[in-house]
Amino acid sequence: MATIPPGGTIGILGGGQLGRMLAMAAAQLGLATHIYCPDEELPAADVAGEVTRAAYDDEAALVRFAGSVEVVTYEFENVPAETARILSERGIVRPGPLALATAQDRVVEKNFLVSHGIATAPFADVADEAGLRSAMEAIGTPSILKTRRFGYDGKGQAKIASAADALAAYDEIGRAPAILEGFVPFEREISVIVARGLDGRTAAYDPVENIHKNHILDRTLAPAALTRALSDEACAIAARIVSELDYVGVMGVELFLLPESGSKRRLLVNEIAPRVHNSGHWTMDACAVSQFEQHIRAICGWPLGSPARHSDAVMTNLIGEEAADWARLAATPDTALHLYGKREARPGRKMGHATRLYPLGTRPPVTPS
Amino acid sequence: MATIPPGGTIGILGGGQLGRMLAMAAAQLGLATHIYCPDEELPAADVAGEVTRAAYDDEAALVRFAGSVEVVTYEFENVPAETARILSERGIVRPGPLALATAQDRVVEKNFLVSHGIATAPFADVADEAGLRSAMEAIGTPSILKTRRFGYDGKGQAKIASAADALAAYDEIGRAPAILEGFVPFEREISVIVARGLDGRTAAYDPVENIHKNHILDRTLAPAALTRALSDEACAIAARIVSELDYVGVMGVELFLLPESGSKRRLLVNEIAPRVHNSGHWTMDACAVSQFEQHIRAICGWPLGSPARHSDAVMTNLIGEEAADWARLAATPDTALHLYGKREARPGRKMGHATRLYPLGTRPPVTPS
Repeated sequence: MATIPPGGTIGILGGGQLGRMLAMAAAQLGLATHIYCPDEELPAADVAGEVTRAAYDDEAALVRFAGSVEVVTYEFENVPAETARILSERGIVRPGPLALATAQDRVVEKNFLVSHGIATAPFADVADEAGLRSAMEAIGTPSILKTRRFGYDGKGQAKIASAADALAAYDEIGRAPAILEGFVPFEREISVIVARGLDGRTAAYDPVENIHKNHILDRTLAPAALTRALSDEACAIAARIVSELDYVGVMGVELFLLPESGSKRRLLVNEIAPRVHNSGHWTMDACAVSQFEQHIRAICGWPLGSPARHSDAVMTNLIGEEAADWARLAATPDTALHLYGKREARPGRKMGHATRLYPLGTRPPVTPS
Repeated sequence: MATIPPGGTIGILGGGQLGRMLAMAAAQLGLATHIYCPDEELPAADVAGEVTRAAYDDEAALVRFAGSVEVVTYEFENVPAETARILSERGIVRPGPLALATAQDRVVEKNFLVSHGIATAPFADVADEAGLRSAMEAIGTPSILKTRRFGYDGKGQAKIASAADALAAYDEIGRAPAILEGFVPFEREISVIVARGLDGRTAAYDPVENIHKNHILDRTLAPAALTRALSDEACAIAARIVSELDYVGVMGVELFLLPESGSKRRLLVNEIAPRVHNSGHWTMDACAVSQFEQHIRAICGWPLGSPARHSDAVMTNLIGEEAADWARLAATPDTALHLYGKREARPGRKMGHATRLYPLGTRPPVTPS
């Protein structure tokens, strides 16, 4: 139960915007950071005390990195298992290997959820063409075929509208090990940013609603318009997941809200992300303790902060050229602008975000973006 | 009217906690920072992209520094005039030389204020022993003798209770060029954090009340309990000062609140600080745009942010060993903890601060610390 006091150094795998915002949260608490990432451009490097630019399979560099920090964390779930093993043998990695192994593979993740009584969309494992046929019989259409690993922002996915599309979809995802998920007629997408401390306590921010555009998060509405019962249920599911994984850190839990009979609704878990999450960026400006600080607190063995918010919020991602609009956004009242310092505004690239604050209880209903 | 867009680099003279928080605010806006400071330990260096550790009279280093940034600013008012001159000849320095020259010398500052019809405590220039005698005749006692330059946190000051103390006080401050100020029986100390943009617009956060301990700021209460008329007057004075100085950036304006007849009160300006100010730290957690971001916006020619606050706040400085209390503070609800990454908790050293948030209009009255 090692606690890392102010003055300690946190190692972060990955040098993107999540690493950047983690590094700033660490600095606020008097903690130093060391970024490890092979990429050429490292948004996180601007605000970190130390940077190692090396490959994730560079064992010598990993060993040096592990020796220079008190704890290692990561900004992305696809940390190679061998990288995690090398680091774990030489120091503390939080969240731990079980969370990584679970979240890296959609089949393992769904089996984990179902085995703990947490509802998901219907799914079947697809190991080969024969497996695809039996999965299609079990799940039917409409459905969606996803690679088990390395999918994000809609990549590695293909929709199947009718049985005749199945093989084409399988080809489209490169015949990789896959999962077939039944399409669920969800009404809205919800997420919960939950944290679990070293002492086992959990703290969840209120559920939020997420609106996607081109498979990329466009806006997060905080809080989601939910009954108290559904909001509590979503938080309880998230707390259950981090507890069952003996998790330490912040996790993003994505859920679907489905209509049932009449006004009744039910929740399914879509997927989990063992890291700070884009749908939690609003906490930087609407809560005393942001998801980034909460993650740093958790992995350092500090008490978790309260997830209470002082304001409602609407967070809008700035994708690609949208960030060119910075001057207008900077002049918008009650708005906190965050730019990630990336040089090239490529299409689909997350360049920044803007969070507009509203007094508690006054968040407007969603408007077209 | 050069605007510095995201991707630009800001040079900051000084590497302490104010530089650190400025660098983080710049990073949030996608701007890089370059810290210039001769000190061994540089809290700002942890979060800056580049650091030059060199003396303020190292002309070659200053020239290189000026060539590497789009604009130079500073975290302390005692930037040597020659340093400012070298940098101004090679680039943009904001706030400009007039603000520095005015704020560096208590006599120049008071004359500036009085010449613009802004009330101050009575004062007289003390150039030598004869000057001290005539100043004592003009100002009387109780009064306070202060060095014209380089005073801070009560340093370079001596109280004069009766005429017999005058020479001892003069010796105590090393017979440096001085100002004698009449002691004013103030009820409370107030400050206004005001910003002026490149376009001449001003924006002031609501006035706050400051409580000192051992001549060092202990707590800031936001907002100050003031009538609307006095609050408006304090903000108008602050806006007047930055406008008359053709100032660009954030300034801290310290005022005394004095009893008049009955419930009437009046304001005197105590001193100005041409930089972000300790009594503005609460804006980091209680406003969409903090004083640090506001300063960066101003010096980069961006639109100023709204100074509106979403929460009331009480900021408490953590001086010396008080920062050892970090774990309890981290567990206090609705509290944002800020630690500056300084290694040694020397007495009187500002190690961090904690800001407790309250819903608008519910800040409790001051309690003993």
